[in-house]
Amino acid sequence: MTGSRRTGRRAGRPGTRETILAAARARFASDGYRASMRAVAADAGVDPALVHHYFGTKEQLFAAVAELPFDPEPVFRRIDTAPLSHLGTILVTSLLQVWDSPAGAAAVAVLRTVLSGEVSASRVFLLEVLLERVRRRIATREDDGRLRISLVASQMAGLLATRKIVRLPPLDSLPIPQLTAAVGPTIQRYLTGSLTPSETANQEGSI
Amino acid sequence: MTGSRRTGRRAGRPGTRETILAAARARFASDGYRASMRAVAADAGVDPALVHHYFGTKEQLFAAVAELPFDPEPVFRRIDTAPLSHLGTILVTSLLQVWDSPAGAAAVAVLRTVLSGEVSASRVFLLEVLLERVRRRIATREDDGRLRISLVASQMAGLLATRKIVRLPPLDSLPIPQLTAAVGPTIQRYLTGSLTPSETANQEGSI
Repeated sequence: MTGSRRTGRRAGRPGTRETILAAARARFASDGYRASMRAVAADAGVDPALVHHYFGTKEQLFAAVAELPFDPEPVFRRIDTAPLSHLGTILVTSLLQVWDSPAGAAAVAVLRTVLSGEVSASRVFLLEVLLERVRRRIATREDDGRLRISLVASQMAGLLATRKIVRLPPLDSLPIPQLTAAVGPTIQRYLTGSLTPSETANQEGSI
Repeated sequence: MTGSRRTGRRAGRPGTRETILAAARARFASDGYRASMRAVAADAGVDPALVHHYFGTKEQLFAAVAELPFDPEPVFRRIDTAPLSHLGTILVTSLLQVWDSPAGAAAVAVLRTVLSGEVSASRVFLLEVLLERVRRRIATREDDGRLRISLVASQMAGLLATRKIVRLPPLDSLPIPQLTAAVGPTIQRYLTGSLTPSETANQEGSI
């Protein structure tokens, strides 16, 4: 990803990557999430194609600016292409894999930042992009999916907090497949299941 | 609860309540959760019955020491007496009612404390008592329920964080009945449902 050069591609002069990175950092700081790749290229004095060449997508440029120690694109791709009936399981597994990798410390840092109220825009951006991609997958004419993704966020934020910050046993050491089996159905129901009281809820009738 | 006097009960001298409270504060600080009502009474130089007279249960004495602006006993009682098939719904409703009350700020403070790692024993004690009471309700010979209550804690901690700290719309303003309908089944499944992969999970076969 970083500066691999092929014949026929403009590879830029030495230092071009750093120039683009500095421009992106300044542009994201001033414009926030709306900063365009085109604007970053203009600030850096290079062709937009060169920005894509060095950094790939805007999310990947963001990841580089935020010095995130992982590439978010594979996770996004899995969410975009997952069968809707498996989205819950795939989302849980993907996030658990990131959290259990060296990048997990960054995920904890993002959560701490969000909870402290001192929001670092460039880091939370990735979270918003993730939730927005999930939302688009499940939105229908009747349901824009906002409640659904906020419920997903509530479970996944709590899971990250209890597994990685509080280290609540046995949740802190449960292997990913078992944890996915436990939490996946919750996320799947929040995404595509019924969120209103079921008719069987009155069976016991004693409350 | 505070110093109501009936005929035939030892009501203590003026200042007795404050003396007991100071003794409890010191005793809980040194002994943590194991501090007994008897030890507090001895430190205060009063009969144990007088401690019960002024403060009720040990949890209520803790609540007074921690200056919690609510009485935890009704919540505990509802959990102890709820039909097992409705425990999820009752737990979610009870906690949401506390969070949406003036005591909600204390709940947020507890969560922030736990997540920051600066744990205030007297406040987290209530959380542990709550989870332990729930665990006892669901424990079986084969399953001690520890994973189940840690999953419950993950969802409820995340719900508190997204509803009250991040204030994620529309979760932040959803009325309690609708939120209970959405989250209650999650908690019920964590408490009493299957946490292993269902046989229908392979239906699509494409992952």
